Amino acid sequence: MARGNKLFCLSSGGYRIVKKGMNRVCELFNIKYPVIQAGMIWNSGWRLASAASNAGCLGLLGAGSMYPDIVRENIQKCKKATIHPFGVNVPLIYPDMDKIIQIILEEEVRIVFTSAGNPGTWTKYLKDRNVTVVHVVSNLKFALKAVDAGVDAIVGEGFEAGGHNGREETTTLCLLPLLGENIKIPIIAAGGIGSGTAMLAAMALGADGVQIGSRFAASVESSAHVNFKNAVIEAKDGDTQLMLKKLTPVRLLKNKFYAEVKAAEEHCATEDELKQLLGRARSKQGMFEGDMEEGELEIGQIASTIHSIKTVQEIVTEIIGDYNALVKKGFATF
Amino acid sequence: MARGNKLFCLSSGGYRIVKKGMNRVCELFNIKYPVIQAGMIWNSGWRLASAASNAGCLGLLGAGSMYPDIVRENIQKCKKATIHPFGVNVPLIYPDMDKIIQIILEEEVRIVFTSAGNPGTWTKYLKDRNVTVVHVVSNLKFALKAVDAGVDAIVGEGFEAGGHNGREETTTLCLLPLLGENIKIPIIAAGGIGSGTAMLAAMALGADGVQIGSRFAASVESSAHVNFKNAVIEAKDGDTQLMLKKLTPVRLLKNKFYAEVKAAEEHCATEDELKQLLGRARSKQGMFEGDMEEGELEIGQIASTIHSIKTVQEIVTEIIGDYNALVKKGFATF
Repeated sequence: MARGNKLFCLSSGGYRIVKKGMNRVCELFNIKYPVIQAGMIWNSGWRLASAASNAGCLGLLGAGSMYPDIVRENIQKCKKATIHPFGVNVPLIYPDMDKIIQIILEEEVRIVFTSAGNPGTWTKYLKDRNVTVVHVVSNLKFALKAVDAGVDAIVGEGFEAGGHNGREETTTLCLLPLLGENIKIPIIAAGGIGSGTAMLAAMALGADGVQIGSRFAASVESSAHVNFKNAVIEAKDGDTQLMLKKLTPVRLLKNKFYAEVKAAEEHCATEDELKQLLGRARSKQGMFEGDMEEGELEIGQIASTIHSIKTVQEIVTEIIGDYNALVKKGFATF
Repeated sequence: MARGNKLFCLSSGGYRIVKKGMNRVCELFNIKYPVIQAGMIWNSGWRLASAASNAGCLGLLGAGSMYPDIVRENIQKCKKATIHPFGVNVPLIYPDMDKIIQIILEEEVRIVFTSAGNPGTWTKYLKDRNVTVVHVVSNLKFALKAVDAGVDAIVGEGFEAGGHNGREETTTLCLLPLLGENIKIPIIAAGGIGSGTAMLAAMALGADGVQIGSRFAASVESSAHVNFKNAVIEAKDGDTQLMLKKLTPVRLLKNKFYAEVKAAEEHCATEDELKQLLGRARSKQGMFEGDMEEGELEIGQIASTIHSIKTVQEIVTEIIGDYNALVKKGFATF
């Protein structure tokens, strides 16, 4: 069975779980809840993605930290672990993108989230091969570019998100209404969303669904090192900061490596000096190998409200439960 | 009649407009809508504050850009222009604070919003004199400090807000749930709120009310120069940035002065060099006198969704109308 089929081509073997007209994100991916588990480097392997899909969300593999062979292995394991749709997040600026795209097609994954690159490069190619394409943006200009390229939906990611981030520093609260004014295709909110109440806030702002990263980074099924997960649940407000703006802006959890970057930036380090400081495989060292001093630790601001490592099923039950309870409780009018 | 009396002391001459139990912010200030018009420097004179109060919100005078005599004049004019409660925003680090506080007491204004300073300094003094005190914070630590000092409510202001801003860079979407977890007194959300949908988003995140700045800066009644109002409605996403972090972080609208600050910061200017560049009365030059090149222009990120200068009544009608419509429309459960 081809994974991630859209509603209209479920005759190929999938089954319909979404009521038409209920929610555009649920319809687009044929999922129960309009919740995407973000494809985070070093966190989003097949265990996390399949658990998210099994819990009624859309699971995403994070190809940004995988060699092509590892992408294939993760796709194959994910297929065995869930009968539900899942997708792959591919940062378009990474090397080996051609190979990874071919593997995705060979393995018949039918959902691709692209980020960090030009949506014009791969969108038509993928859509011609029956793949649903979503592009991640941090400003209106790139959102309009992605719409022009023919993507099926947009992820609008705010300044508070973990990992790589936009130069405009527009927050989710300010980005969503702006996208809503100008974009007709489904909008998925990302950055700062770790709860059912934040999910409802995003829907109030016009989002059709949400992409959640940090909360799932602190899940049992995340492939990150337990040291990293523990650091996430211990983070307080102000413990992350957007750094390395001369290279590509990235939100870091404060540690020894962060302090070195901060000191270098305060002394006006050049791009080359920052690149040298960053070195290679820092994020693997931190998030995957658990070196909390020298590693690069990427997490969102919302980590300050995450206090425990839970299973994906527990997380999803809590988010959807809180969301539904708040919807049912309603709000006073004035 | 004493202005801004709380519900329980309305026998002194006010009249009750708020149903008990409806909304804590409405009850606290005896106002129709849980909307505070922010006390912005060079924008929030008596015309704006009285118009906001007459429209059912809580109007605030912005004392941060006023000499003591001007504060008194604005209070007296505001009293003549509205029978409804209004308050004064006082940045505690400004000179002449003692004089301004005495004028507020002499003029029997019963609501004070304090910001930019230690809430311990004035809160008890004001509360002993029957003044409702609200303190503006950008992180949990200062929120807890303000609660300890005995304030009646907290404004939680996120990174996207205009003007002076917190060093942690926590966004409204991330700050509100954190405050909600830890603070029992009413929470007023600020930063990134320019519409009824954003107001509902803030309420979903646990706020009891909202403080709106940028939208009211682009009102007919704002005392800012029309050049500044026009610049606000023309701003696109990415047109503001948090600058001067070595001094006090402030969100600026990009112009010639901003470009000079940016260049200086990129060349690692010292605090003293930045102070010299900032000079004196830059914000007056920009926002009040309309010098769009050399002036300091303070506005929030949400300016990118503000497209027209309207009267305060039109703005409030639109915000409350959109909020109520969205509440009545409701949300799907999953």
